Amino acid sequence: MKAGFEQDKMKDACGVFAIHAPDKDVARLAYFALFSLQHRGQESAGIAVYSDKEIVCYKNMGLVTLVFDEKILRLLKGRMAVGHVRYSTTGSSNEVNAQPILAGSDTIRHSKSCGAKYRRQVAVAHNGNLVNTATLREELQEQGVEFETSSDTEVIAEMIAMSDKPTAEEAVADSLRQARGAFSIVALCEGKIFAARDSFGIRPLCLGKLGDGNWAVASETCAFSIIGAQFEREIRPGELVIIDDSGVKSVDYTKPQREALCIFEFIYFARPDSVMLGQTLYTVRRNLGAILAAESQVEADVVISVPDSGTPAAIGFAQASGIPFVDGLIKNRYVGRTFIQPNQEMRELGVKMKLNPLSDNIRGKRVVMVDDSIVRGSTSSKIVSLLRANGATEVHVRVSSPPVKFPCFYGIDTASREELVASQLSVEQIKEMLGADSLSYISEEGMFKATSMDRHNFCSACFTEEYPIPIPQQLHLEKLMYENGKKQENRVPTCLRENNPRS
Amino acid sequence: MKAGFEQDKMKDACGVFAIHAPDKDVARLAYFALFSLQHRGQESAGIAVYSDKEIVCYKNMGLVTLVFDEKILRLLKGRMAVGHVRYSTTGSSNEVNAQPILAGSDTIRHSKSCGAKYRRQVAVAHNGNLVNTATLREELQEQGVEFETSSDTEVIAEMIAMSDKPTAEEAVADSLRQARGAFSIVALCEGKIFAARDSFGIRPLCLGKLGDGNWAVASETCAFSIIGAQFEREIRPGELVIIDDSGVKSVDYTKPQREALCIFEFIYFARPDSVMLGQTLYTVRRNLGAILAAESQVEADVVISVPDSGTPAAIGFAQASGIPFVDGLIKNRYVGRTFIQPNQEMRELGVKMKLNPLSDNIRGKRVVMVDDSIVRGSTSSKIVSLLRANGATEVHVRVSSPPVKFPCFYGIDTASREELVASQLSVEQIKEMLGADSLSYISEEGMFKATSMDRHNFCSACFTEEYPIPIPQQLHLEKLMYENGKKQENRVPTCLRENNPRS
Amino acid sequence: MKAGFEQDKMKDACGVFAIHAPDKDVARLAYFALFSLQHRGQESAGIAVYSDKEIVCYKNMGLVTLVFDEKILRLLKGRMAVGHVRYSTTGSSNEVNAQPILAGSDTIRHSKSCGAKYRRQVAVAHNGNLVNTATLREELQEQGVEFETSSDTEVIAEMIAMSDKPTAEEAVADSLRQARGAFSIVALCEGKIFAARDSFGIRPLCLGKLGDGNWAVASETCAFSIIGAQFEREIRPGELVIIDDSGVKSVDYTKPQREALCIFEFIYFARPDSVMLGQTLYTVRRNLGAILAAESQVEADVVISVPDSGTPAAIGFAQASGIPFVDGLIKNRYVGRTFIQPNQEMRELGVKMKLNPLSDNIRGKRVVMVDDSIVRGSTSSKIVSLLRANGATEVHVRVSSPPVKFPCFYGIDTASREELVASQLSVEQIKEMLGADSLSYISEEGMFKATSMDRHNFCSACFTEEYPIPIPQQLHLEKLMYENGKKQENRVPTCLRENNPRS
Amino acid sequence: MKAGFEQDKMKDACGVFAIHAPDKDVARLAYFALFSLQHRGQESAGIAVYSDKEIVCYKNMGLVTLVFDEKILRLLKGRMAVGHVRYSTTGSSNEVNAQPILAGSDTIRHSKSCGAKYRRQVAVAHNGNLVNTATLREELQEQGVEFETSSDTEVIAEMIAMSDKPTAEEAVADSLRQARGAFSIVALCEGKIFAARDSFGIRPLCLGKLGDGNWAVASETCAFSIIGAQFEREIRPGELVIIDDSGVKSVDYTKPQREALCIFEFIYFARPDSVMLGQTLYTVRRNLGAILAAESQVEADVVISVPDSGTPAAIGFAQASGIPFVDGLIKNRYVGRTFIQPNQEMRELGVKMKLNPLSDNIRGKRVVMVDDSIVRGSTSSKIVSLLRANGATEVHVRVSSPPVKFPCFYGIDTASREELVASQLSVEQIKEMLGADSLSYISEEGMFKATSMDRHNFCSACFTEEYPIPIPQQLHLEKLMYENGKKQENRVPTCLRENNPRS
Repeated sequence: MKAGFEQDKMKDACGVFAIHAPDKDVARLAYFALFSLQHRGQESAGIAVYSDKEIVCYKNMGLVTLVFDEKILRLLKGRMAVGHVRYSTTGSSNEVNAQPILAGSDTIRHSKSCGAKYRRQVAVAHNGNLVNTATLREELQEQGVEFETSSDTEVIAEMIAMSDKPTAEEAVADSLRQARGAFSIVALCEGKIFAARDSFGIRPLCLGKLGDGNWAVASETCAFSIIGAQFEREIRPGELVIIDDSGVKSVDYTKPQREALCIFEFIYFARPDSVMLGQTLYTVRRNLGAILAAESQVEADVVISVPDSGTPAAIGFAQASGIPFVDGLIKNRYVGRTFIQPNQEMRELGVKMKLNPLSDNIRGKRVVMVDDSIVRGSTSSKIVSLLRANGATEVHVRVSSPPVKFPCFYGIDTASREELVASQLSVEQIKEMLGADSLSYISEEGMFKATSMDRHNFCSACFTEEYPIPIPQQLHLEKLMYENGKKQENRVPTCLRENNPRS
Repeated sequence: MKAGFEQDKMKDACGVFAIHAPDKDVARLAYFALFSLQHRGQESAGIAVYSDKEIVCYKNMGLVTLVFDEKILRLLKGRMAVGHVRYSTTGSSNEVNAQPILAGSDTIRHSKSCGAKYRRQVAVAHNGNLVNTATLREELQEQGVEFETSSDTEVIAEMIAMSDKPTAEEAVADSLRQARGAFSIVALCEGKIFAARDSFGIRPLCLGKLGDGNWAVASETCAFSIIGAQFEREIRPGELVIIDDSGVKSVDYTKPQREALCIFEFIYFARPDSVMLGQTLYTVRRNLGAILAAESQVEADVVISVPDSGTPAAIGFAQASGIPFVDGLIKNRYVGRTFIQPNQEMRELGVKMKLNPLSDNIRGKRVVMVDDSIVRGSTSSKIVSLLRANGATEVHVRVSSPPVKFPCFYGIDTASREELVASQLSVEQIKEMLGADSLSYISEEGMFKATSMDRHNFCSACFTEEYPIPIPQQLHLEKLMYENGKKQENRVPTCLRENNPRS
Repeated sequence: MKAGFEQDKMKDACGVFAIHAPDKDVARLAYFALFSLQHRGQESAGIAVYSDKEIVCYKNMGLVTLVFDEKILRLLKGRMAVGHVRYSTTGSSNEVNAQPILAGSDTIRHSKSCGAKYRRQVAVAHNGNLVNTATLREELQEQGVEFETSSDTEVIAEMIAMSDKPTAEEAVADSLRQARGAFSIVALCEGKIFAARDSFGIRPLCLGKLGDGNWAVASETCAFSIIGAQFEREIRPGELVIIDDSGVKSVDYTKPQREALCIFEFIYFARPDSVMLGQTLYTVRRNLGAILAAESQVEADVVISVPDSGTPAAIGFAQASGIPFVDGLIKNRYVGRTFIQPNQEMRELGVKMKLNPLSDNIRGKRVVMVDDSIVRGSTSSKIVSLLRANGATEVHVRVSSPPVKFPCFYGIDTASREELVASQLSVEQIKEMLGADSLSYISEEGMFKATSMDRHNFCSACFTEEYPIPIPQQLHLEKLMYENGKKQENRVPTCLRENNPRS
Repeated sequence: MKAGFEQDKMKDACGVFAIHAPDKDVARLAYFALFSLQHRGQESAGIAVYSDKEIVCYKNMGLVTLVFDEKILRLLKGRMAVGHVRYSTTGSSNEVNAQPILAGSDTIRHSKSCGAKYRRQVAVAHNGNLVNTATLREELQEQGVEFETSSDTEVIAEMIAMSDKPTAEEAVADSLRQARGAFSIVALCEGKIFAARDSFGIRPLCLGKLGDGNWAVASETCAFSIIGAQFEREIRPGELVIIDDSGVKSVDYTKPQREALCIFEFIYFARPDSVMLGQTLYTVRRNLGAILAAESQVEADVVISVPDSGTPAAIGFAQASGIPFVDGLIKNRYVGRTFIQPNQEMRELGVKMKLNPLSDNIRGKRVVMVDDSIVRGSTSSKIVSLLRANGATEVHVRVSSPPVKFPCFYGIDTASREELVASQLSVEQIKEMLGADSLSYISEEGMFKATSMDRHNFCSACFTEEYPIPIPQQLHLEKLMYENGKKQENRVPTCLRENNPRS
């Protein structure tokens, strides 16, 4: 459980939320919103509020419902709030990485004497990954800033707090202009909420309206549904939205580029009931399944999904193919906290922690198993075996995304290229590895068609190697070294989807 | 959050597990088994183990994964174990009600001087509800037993510990013969595992085999799947199974009656991947949907379920009716612990904590909404409104169980008769109350047909008032009084399914 | 560990603190002040702060250092604060009794609909005991107030919150005029700190100055020392002090009576480094020892104390008598939390949890054992035995207070009269009971002389039965019933000093 | 709060306990014994028990009373136990360092595959410091052992577990023969308790008798008092005591050297009611004070101590000099857990967390302030100022140990030589630094005389640089580097006594 250097190198998917509602219980609304964004991060949760003078923040490791209780929420009085949920990467149970991150004053760090001269207090919550963290960090260190984490979020927060620009708005805009990479951030500074996306809009962020002049910002629209807010619009690439008592204001803090939203938000990350680029993701995923069915027909008796994320595509596949959809694998839903590991003896007994096959629906059947993606392939392989052991006569694997061949540097924790099975093996070889009777991925064209959008609206670098933001060579090397450096037992498949609590 | 007297009157659904495996890590296996039975109870969890001399027990409030950690599991060394998960009823957060319950010696209670003369130490885990608790309790009190709870489980444990029968087997058998009501129990006593069902077999219990002469007992077969055990057979009504180093032994401790398994295990309680009476429950539930479709045809565009428990029936309904199944409501899955309540302001904002409608699949559609049961009707009514607010042009409610008209006295926490909507209103009136365009319940005949079993295999008293075990008038009165006595704000609909964490 | 009705009847010594310092970290200062008052109550601790709009409060069971951590303190931002530590009575581990108590709005209770019409929000911390709680409570209940506790503090808080007086000051003054009994309270209401004592000044309360127009109020002056404040003066009987941005204001909310400070504050309760009525209590206690030595001379080899509270008197006794003072009993200081009980077997082994005799200083010696008081006598008796078992040839018990014969109704948890050994037995009989060679109490005259004050400055009803405030017959009965009603095992000697964590 | 490399280099004073009592509740007895040894370590506590098959262990950060509760104690069933309390060094809050340390099997580490071939399971609790840890560690690593800590205790445990000697006794003896340094250890292995001291007996360890053939071993005799055991004798240097069902057996596992007990156990570490080398330490400390008074006479009005550890010497000083002893500084006793720091503002306010002066006893007086030792001198300096600020006209510092000039390498966390004030300054210079009117240390001769023992019975290297066990040059360098490497803010004076929780 040691949080070593490597762990700090891992940048993760996260969920962010902000609200400006002077007459409401903003902490409680943030709590519920973060609860609805919990699928974006289960490692830690935090809320910072601002009343009239100062920002206070409470955050801890664990699910939203574990971090906060009634007594804590009642202390978080304020007129506006920002919140964050963080993705759980293996072994990193380090509270310093929890967000929002405070900079400026009144942080534990700065109660000690510190060389830095702060100009303002700020709380930042961030989803994404900067690619020029090291450079920015060094500059701040020269100004006397002492960092507590190696996180890029802390760098952003310190930039804003240290900025010599006269207003918070200029300080935020100026800081964001210096940042390279993928980021959707919300910040609380000088009585205003700031929300911005990088110039490609790689990570999602949207604006919602609560009525009475109150506004919210969230990674996904499902956060608006739970608090009764109305989705207003997406924050645009390169846009900085400022919310204060006078309402919502928008500036382009930088020149926007083409939209390049992470395609995996459509395929798997976001909740199916969220809406992005005007599309309900459930519908997109069902389309993916339908197109996949058309592209790779197969004779079979039942269509099953790898729950829960594969289900919309499986339903779409079933409806397009006419093969009936059934539940083939039942998932245990009560994973609360850090999980105890089965021991070797239990692994030999065949302990199946997460998925239990429904033999009735499989036995003697030719099964189409629909999943949303394959990264390393190890989990898929186990599921195929499980289905066969429970009587499936054939197993046809259908994947509603193209082969993942290239790592992500924009905030998603993929494996290194060497570990991505599709970058090492042909589809035929992967089929053999999985032990499947057939294997088909959706085509890139099919995928884009399912989104009803143009391919140029997305970042699909993990399929195509077309990274919209250049990746410094250094990051490539670090990813490689990191992967090689990890001990085998810690080398948990923290990849696009396997072992992810959501899958 | 006060645990008053009334709370003790509430008897709840629970999950039990036992294992005899001298060379294995029995506590860890019990942990995983209880994890798979978590749907049967989220209030508390406990495991008792026996090594060579004594029983030790650890239990606490909360989910299995919260109660136990690696450090605690390592202290639970033993050759055999019993475990328990308890259903969470509102407000009752009382640790003394956690099971297994120890009696005999070395309990906290008996470290104080106590008039009772114990003959043996026993740990009991119980699912069900005795109807003669009061009588048995008084007899034991006369012998000097001081009770810590008002639970019937403590009564059973004390009977066994106090019994003057020479062996544990005779003590258990004799105690069970005195018990009236519904019970499936597992107990650990004098180096043996005991497992028994009441003479009607109202609550489920089954036997599994681990190999190497090791055996397990569980409420449901899904607990065997997770630990790699093989389902052997169900424990029979009136049967007492004894497991020790010499293997499995069976005695009929009492004359078995007709099997009267709780029909709601088939409809809703048990996990869909569990097998009871030879039937996989998923299949039964799909059958229920299909028969329901045939019984109450409707013109509609989509079939949706009230997730998660209504889904198999909805899929069955869709396939039988030819109307496509889609997900219409997305459920938030990360409910970890006691939940913070939205305040009044948030309720007005329309905070929807658990279910979010997928407008894309509903808007402009005639919707069939399939649910497994309606108890008070309040939740169903809200969901119908939600669907209409999201654009459903028609909402046809289909229920895969008949109208629930009578309370349960066998371990299920139903409402009082007055609160059961179907005992007060006609189907037409309920339809009006729900605001549905049409409402149909499956017929009793249809329900039994879906089970592939005879109606005489089940207790279906909640539909028919045919209680297999007579209910003392006193219990009827208490249930009534209890319901009337509860303050309105505490009167949470702890009913067959509404507000249940599983639904 | 059940908190039954009886427990709520027990009124306890407590410590209170308030601070008005808009530019300082008032919660942190309150934390340290409460830490210095910890001897007045170890059961629970709490701090309420007010910033510009609302009062927020955090409190919990346990020592100050356990209840608060850095993360919580940082959430308690405010311009002023009130704090409280509560005395630990056996078995009562009920968080609802923790103080400060909030009334008005935003309490958990009032987030539910409640009949009461509140006019203001208030937080109250209280040391003392009202004797007309029942009457006041009923009046409030008629106005729709729903009480959560049976505490008199909640009654005071609700009176203030409900008062139809136009200002907070008038509401507080009016409420206090209705209260009968002993009370020193601090309250936070409408941006002001209120501090008041009953008209006899039975429980202590004093005013301190922090400089820069900042003020503090505390039960004892030691709280000023720890935060660097200067003792200004004692709050007078019947005085209400109001502190706000404009400074300190004083009104006599009622006609003051003669001062009647609890004499036991001088003898035992307060910290020896605190100053009351102009006297440093250490000096008073040393005087008590010196006068006791003069009153009851004895030939002996060593003077020992029952640590820690008996030590100043023992040192005074030694110096006056010329008999050398030595440590005779070593006390274990690391009692952190709820303590595990030794079992019967260990009691037989002679487990001595708290005091270990220093045989070297006792063996073969004639010992004078100085204690500050004897209530039930059971502990004293054990210590005498322990000294003899470790070789003392003679044990002469000297008590630096007169015999305690009458119960306290003003906030101190004494035994009932029947349990007070001095109300049942003569000094000679008590000597026999203790197994001492001689026993002497200080005379009343001697006691008052040691204080350098007049007897009319004190309440000494526990010695004299001269209760300054009339005690309703009902309270006498309840005290009696309470004592008789307690089960023997719960009947912990929660008396003036035995078993008190301080002793 | 990071536990970095440096922290692992710090070896600390600790307390150990072992008990063999098959029919008793050994975990509960160990709990009470550790509670009485709490002054030897407040960082972590742990107990390991052995029943018939395996050792189980529970340990955690915190005081004994926080680590264990009734529920945990009940799981620790066994026939014998070993326990440990660990000294709290700044910043090191790392649970892996808690003891007892298990090796062999069933530790978390070894549930993973590990190259090592264990021959037995062992639990070790250790007080002291090896000087050849690095060498032993490397040898074990070559055999496949993977270490979790850098602690020497883990090395000892692994040596025993890996030893190819046929019996536990030979394995323990052989392992101890390889260890160089100061160590008093207790171990539990193959159903036997082992207790041993290094060949110089630098750290204390003694044997006690419970009756009925039951035995205990503890760092100090106060642990016997609390559980009702009788002190039997000290374990001898180079002796290995083995306790099992057949009784106590003793072997000299190595050739004993001269006794060289740490003189600081007499001066300060051990509880005053403990007995070592036949002397009650309270008496020794009073003697130290008396001799100090004779050696360095002074005209003064009062003698005060720096509580609590300086008190016996102060009393001895007072009695020998005829100057009256009074309490001059009152200590806050309720430090429960990690303590919140005063902020800069509060430090300026003069926050005095631990000691409050009793002005009455100081004002206008010539004060002799007796302390047991001075290491860095910073705390003493603050106390002298405090006394003057409270009116002392003269402050004469008297120290009941000679000047500490040399670091300890045998398990005591002293400062580096550079930080030891007496190694840098003359007594006259220190006097100036402290701001005292005079300063005297006891002479070495005086100190030994006070012990009633010969100087050759002790290790007094911190005064004399005569290290009984040679210190490898590497350790000198590491101590130096460690000190230089620490950041200033972390450079907490973890020295012989300042800032120690006991002082």
